[in-house]
Amino acid sequence: MSAAENRVLMRSMGQNSIVQPLLTDLYQITMAYAYWKAGKHHGNAVFDVYFRKNPFNGEFTIFAGLEECLKFLETFRYSDSDIAYLKQILPACIEEQFYEYLASLTADEIKLYAVKEGTVVFPRVPMIRVEGPLIVAQLLETTLLNLVNFASLMTTNAARYRLAAGKLKLYEFGLRRAQGPDGGLSASKYSYVGGFDGSSNVLAGKLFNIPVKGTHAHAFITSFKCLEELNTSTLVPKQGGTTGDFLGNTLRWREKLSQLLNIVLSEVNNGELAAFVSFATAFPDGFMALVDTYDTVRSGLLNFCAVALALHDFGYRAIGIRLDSGDLAYQSQVARNYFNKIASEYSLPYFSELNIMASNDINEETILSLNEQGHCINSFGIGTHLVTCQKQPALGCVYKLVELDDEPRIKLSHDVAKVTIPGKKNVFRLYGHQFSLIDLLQRPDEVPPTNNQKVLCRHPFQESKRAYVIPSKVEDLLILFWSNGKICQKLPNLQEIRDNVHHNLSILRNDIKRSLNPTPYKVSVSDNLYHFLHDLWLDNAPIGELS
Amino acid sequence: MSAAENRVLMRSMGQNSIVQPLLTDLYQITMAYAYWKAGKHHGNAVFDVYFRKNPFNGEFTIFAGLEECLKFLETFRYSDSDIAYLKQILPACIEEQFYEYLASLTADEIKLYAVKEGTVVFPRVPMIRVEGPLIVAQLLETTLLNLVNFASLMTTNAARYRLAAGKLKLYEFGLRRAQGPDGGLSASKYSYVGGFDGSSNVLAGKLFNIPVKGTHAHAFITSFKCLEELNTSTLVPKQGGTTGDFLGNTLRWREKLSQLLNIVLSEVNNGELAAFVSFATAFPDGFMALVDTYDTVRSGLLNFCAVALALHDFGYRAIGIRLDSGDLAYQSQVARNYFNKIASEYSLPYFSELNIMASNDINEETILSLNEQGHCINSFGIGTHLVTCQKQPALGCVYKLVELDDEPRIKLSHDVAKVTIPGKKNVFRLYGHQFSLIDLLQRPDEVPPTNNQKVLCRHPFQESKRAYVIPSKVEDLLILFWSNGKICQKLPNLQEIRDNVHHNLSILRNDIKRSLNPTPYKVSVSDNLYHFLHDLWLDNAPIGELS
Repeated sequence: MSAAENRVLMRSMGQNSIVQPLLTDLYQITMAYAYWKAGKHHGNAVFDVYFRKNPFNGEFTIFAGLEECLKFLETFRYSDSDIAYLKQILPACIEEQFYEYLASLTADEIKLYAVKEGTVVFPRVPMIRVEGPLIVAQLLETTLLNLVNFASLMTTNAARYRLAAGKLKLYEFGLRRAQGPDGGLSASKYSYVGGFDGSSNVLAGKLFNIPVKGTHAHAFITSFKCLEELNTSTLVPKQGGTTGDFLGNTLRWREKLSQLLNIVLSEVNNGELAAFVSFATAFPDGFMALVDTYDTVRSGLLNFCAVALALHDFGYRAIGIRLDSGDLAYQSQVARNYFNKIASEYSLPYFSELNIMASNDINEETILSLNEQGHCINSFGIGTHLVTCQKQPALGCVYKLVELDDEPRIKLSHDVAKVTIPGKKNVFRLYGHQFSLIDLLQRPDEVPPTNNQKVLCRHPFQESKRAYVIPSKVEDLLILFWSNGKICQKLPNLQEIRDNVHHNLSILRNDIKRSLNPTPYKVSVSDNLYHFLHDLWLDNAPIGELS
Repeated sequence: MSAAENRVLMRSMGQNSIVQPLLTDLYQITMAYAYWKAGKHHGNAVFDVYFRKNPFNGEFTIFAGLEECLKFLETFRYSDSDIAYLKQILPACIEEQFYEYLASLTADEIKLYAVKEGTVVFPRVPMIRVEGPLIVAQLLETTLLNLVNFASLMTTNAARYRLAAGKLKLYEFGLRRAQGPDGGLSASKYSYVGGFDGSSNVLAGKLFNIPVKGTHAHAFITSFKCLEELNTSTLVPKQGGTTGDFLGNTLRWREKLSQLLNIVLSEVNNGELAAFVSFATAFPDGFMALVDTYDTVRSGLLNFCAVALALHDFGYRAIGIRLDSGDLAYQSQVARNYFNKIASEYSLPYFSELNIMASNDINEETILSLNEQGHCINSFGIGTHLVTCQKQPALGCVYKLVELDDEPRIKLSHDVAKVTIPGKKNVFRLYGHQFSLIDLLQRPDEVPPTNNQKVLCRHPFQESKRAYVIPSKVEDLLILFWSNGKICQKLPNLQEIRDNVHHNLSILRNDIKRSLNPTPYKVSVSDNLYHFLHDLWLDNAPIGELS
């Protein structure tokens, strides 16, 4: 599907229809009225979107959701029915003129800067900076946070699975357990962005052009009780010619293999074989079998191999098996061992390469543990843990006012992690020859760092922590994406965002990416910003703070 | 808004537009083809929807999402564009006739039985039973599970908060951290169903007629730096008459109160006071103030009380405060102490009753711990932990084939929890005089239990566990909701479902509902079903199982 067709389709389906100005917290509207009454609504505000802590006990996060934010800005407008609803729920004292004003609002006067979608980001680094009339900028808060938080969390989660799984294939299988229909759709989309190879979600495939995967479930296997239920037991060979007795061929192979693999034939389930034969005759070039319904080692594998060899006789090649319960490492090794024996006994080298997929309650730790134990799995189907981000189901992005009418604003807190870095800031990523070294936040009027020039980078809160850095490359992270009521950059497609994630992770040091005790990436401030921050803190701190 | 208007609105907004047949796993479609090829698609199938373990380490679950399932059945039909997409991604070997058949499918031949939405349910109890042509029943699986899983999880989570909070007010504030726009909307809806008093989510209010709440955020407070920024510092008295100097009045009160409450005036933040005055003059009858931006005890509370007393002079009554950081128990006690002092000093009894809301990272355990410590909080605003169900972000509902063409199906597993109870089953809830006692699953041809007649209830897997029960009341839990292509019951509105949750929890014993080490509720099978299950198990078990 072309991008244009896709847009038309998505619009006609109302994909984004609930992303609208009322998808917000009521206090945004009450604040808007108070700003309006106070005559502050035109004030020129700067808000930063950032988080305070990386998710999943990790030390990196991937920014995603930008395109959805920009599309929200395009359509930001209160409808007549929205205004009517607000009149119904807000106090009668609200002046009619305010509603007229609200109905006239658009995002045209907003400027939105952001890092590129798919970029690695770190605590305190503004991922988005929103500038413009206080009232509009404030009214955007909840919706923008909603759109960024889950998209970034999901992409980061998927990227962590990708790092754990190395070159193995990863498929997202979580729709049934996701947080609602759209939670499932977003999970499919952003797990692909984070590095998954595809999804079982057909609608996600249709809407986002993501590869879709799937074979059959246990219900398919148990729907067959015996071989007599088969109404199709013949198959036309791949090269054409006369229809042959596929079931007969399969049964002959099963008898032979039971000797080769030393499996008691009387223990093998015939309903399962009927299901496999049925599926193989429907998809002779796509035969992937779920082998654990009765007993993987004593039944499923033998039935699969018999069908796969019969398919071979008819000129087709089976794809592989799926394991959905039990000891995945052990079963995958038994399966690979069977496949190797057959490959060697019948001189069929491709049999050694048959795909083994595992899909039972897999999470990042399971994959890392399987890697340690040794296994013969080629691909993982991952559901619940991935799509709900079970390890940490929310990212804590916040939207903080840092400047109003050129005056910096600071939010103080006893908890230093909650103190905002005031004022509009530029963000630079400084690179060494291979990896990114450090992020540097500066005041907007400072001279930006340049290649091969040393620059002082300070810890924002600990005076003694500072160092000179000589970058080989400098990247200005915040790019203007929205201005004058329009998206002002060419937006990347999903594949390009996915490539950006891959690229970003490739230039991040391994010790920062690792799962166990990762090293924090450094986010620093310029000397100028350091003093600006601490002077303002002092000006605003109550006297009691000194104690 | 009337129900009809609401339906029109929701439809026009495409609220449910992504709930469509392609919102499914690909393997449902590949299985459908294999069934069709095998001539099994017309087989009369029975699928049960149930879960194996209650969420949140609890012993109960609330069933929700039924209305969304039924609406999905109403619109279940593959569109031309769906079929075109499937042709694109499925193997070329698939016969054209299958696509024609797929395009003709509807849910008209399906019968859907379910327990009433808002009913308490337990492991293994079928919440939904789907009967009908194998191919259609199978194609519904993923979407139905998606719609039931999060709705039930969210409702259960909310109900647990409700039990923990007793009579205190509970508001859902989680939109910004929810799993996507629809995740947020579902969270608002089902937390109301589970017993919350309202939400901050304006769109949820508009769509579902849920009470909406909200005042202002820290950004509002920090947007004011000093009193000079106020452009409105006057107010018209509630009874009418001449506009008075509201700010002046507030400042006089603040000075008096600083002595009464022994607070150093020089430490009190004037930007905060300006924000409060501004908000109070905009909402003189709805003044609820966020008091923790600078320092709750040394600044926020004094500023709030000054404004509240000034409002009183003008004939208005303040609502209360919100605490969003720090030690909530302690701060709420200080606040209540201040309010009491003022109430007594100026003979304003209502001041003692001012609302204290707490909203910082609250979860079920926080509420239980605050209850133990003692606190003076009246209401909680709850975000992340509630809406993402952080303690357990997914419910494991499954959809299992239990019968095909009148023959029972069983899925065996080394893990006894994963063994399905085969065959179509009726479900009865047996009541004592006050509480529900036990659930009983029977084969469909058995005589149902009746009031005051003893009936044998057996543990499904442990032979020695069985008992006679004499119920004072018997409820047949599974009701036919969908038949002949139509919803065949009057559906309750959201308020009625919420009432049903409340009623259901009121007849469940406290030891089953409690948070710490709850007692499991008993789910039993009839003697007949017990033997049916175990005979079938024996017939299907491989010989090796005996070892």
